Amino acid sequence: MKYELYYWPEIQGRGEFVRLALEEAAADYVDVARTARGTVAMMQMMQSKDGTPPFAPPFLKAGKLVIGQTANILLYLGARHGLAPKSEAGRLWLHQLQLTIADFVAEVHDTHHPLGATLYYEDQRAPAKKRTAEFWKERAPKYLGYFEGLLAANGGRYVAGRKLSYVDLSLFQLIAGLRYAFPKNMTAFEAEVPKLVDLSERVAQRPNIKVYLASERRIPFNEQGIFRHYRELDA
Amino acid sequence: MKYELYYWPEIQGRGEFVRLALEEAAADYVDVARTARGTVAMMQMMQSKDGTPPFAPPFLKAGKLVIGQTANILLYLGARHGLAPKSEAGRLWLHQLQLTIADFVAEVHDTHHPLGATLYYEDQRAPAKKRTAEFWKERAPKYLGYFEGLLAANGGRYVAGRKLSYVDLSLFQLIAGLRYAFPKNMTAFEAEVPKLVDLSERVAQRPNIKVYLASERRIPFNEQGIFRHYRELDA
Repeated sequence: MKYELYYWPEIQGRGEFVRLALEEAAADYVDVARTARGTVAMMQMMQSKDGTPPFAPPFLKAGKLVIGQTANILLYLGARHGLAPKSEAGRLWLHQLQLTIADFVAEVHDTHHPLGATLYYEDQRAPAKKRTAEFWKERAPKYLGYFEGLLAANGGRYVAGRKLSYVDLSLFQLIAGLRYAFPKNMTAFEAEVPKLVDLSERVAQRPNIKVYLASERRIPFNEQGIFRHYRELDA
Repeated sequence: MKYELYYWPEIQGRGEFVRLALEEAAADYVDVARTARGTVAMMQMMQSKDGTPPFAPPFLKAGKLVIGQTANILLYLGARHGLAPKSEAGRLWLHQLQLTIADFVAEVHDTHHPLGATLYYEDQRAPAKKRTAEFWKERAPKYLGYFEGLLAANGGRYVAGRKLSYVDLSLFQLIAGLRYAFPKNMTAFEAEVPKLVDLSERVAQRPNIKVYLASERRIPFNEQGIFRHYRELDA
């Protein structure tokens, strides 16, 4: 079965957490919105009057199923591609961690858009500075420290179990994104989370991920996505 | 099996979506943090060095399982208490909707805390006004309009399938919360989402929910939770 991934074609965004899982699993998929008329097809699926129209991208078409919400897609893919444990307890735990990552991702986004996603960054620079200060003082240490602790408790190699999971891939993406958006902050902060940094470097060296990151399928970070580099926010 | 729910004892918050499911199902549970020394027990579980320490409440202890993240708890409970369809496709769809509700809940929270959850509301009144304006202009109509459309496409009675699900209970809570926080806005807005309003009134009349809402187990809305009434934000 060939999967169809639907996501905005010009950003990594939330779709990247799904792309990383598909690439690691060497799954057969097409990134629909990056093909001709693909964005039109994506918008049509969201406006469908019956079936299960997603609220927002990303969503994945898997045969007849249309699955929306990043963590939900990973819940589905993880079970099918060896990126999650087989037991119910293991799957729920991994999904819980992915949902915690989703919460963190929303907070990363709000560093540059505290007054709302539909307003321009340029119209909320001052609040963005305050929100970013709170993010680095309180939130990033709390979230990343939590995952660092889980890695330590699990032996340091993977966040859960004895094999790579989709959550490890997502943690790589968090570190990569924060390094892009906040290079100065991250240089100062990385010593606090050595196991996370080590994990992200091991993920980047995995054969399938390494090929992917060097390919054109990996969209470069930019100032339209979740992780944005605005010099004035990187103290 | 008696469930143990762990959540902040003085607010509805995210825990309320779980409480509503437990109450509708007439499940045997204890709201641990509302018992003597319960909050201490909750904090200890979050600081556990092994097992599966949750990042934040709510979490549910079900036998040996400790399940965190509201939507994940509902995914687990829904399957066991007839509050979700049996098919994988149906369960994924319902979970997707609950995750969309979770995104909306985070945006509701940010109306009064756009600069960060760890700062006082009083220190972010002006940005809160702007974020709230964007919320009512763009976000609330988009999210609630989406669920209104799903209800219409599904015959108007429930959001998915032919039976009540945990998502219907959560939609009731959204309407109740928005009515508390923004009475003027909601009075003006409710005509846009008549099916959602009708659903929420039917949920409130269900026997188990009706008893629950009249009991002391239902914590009143207040200005510590997600839905807060600040007169200056209700235009």
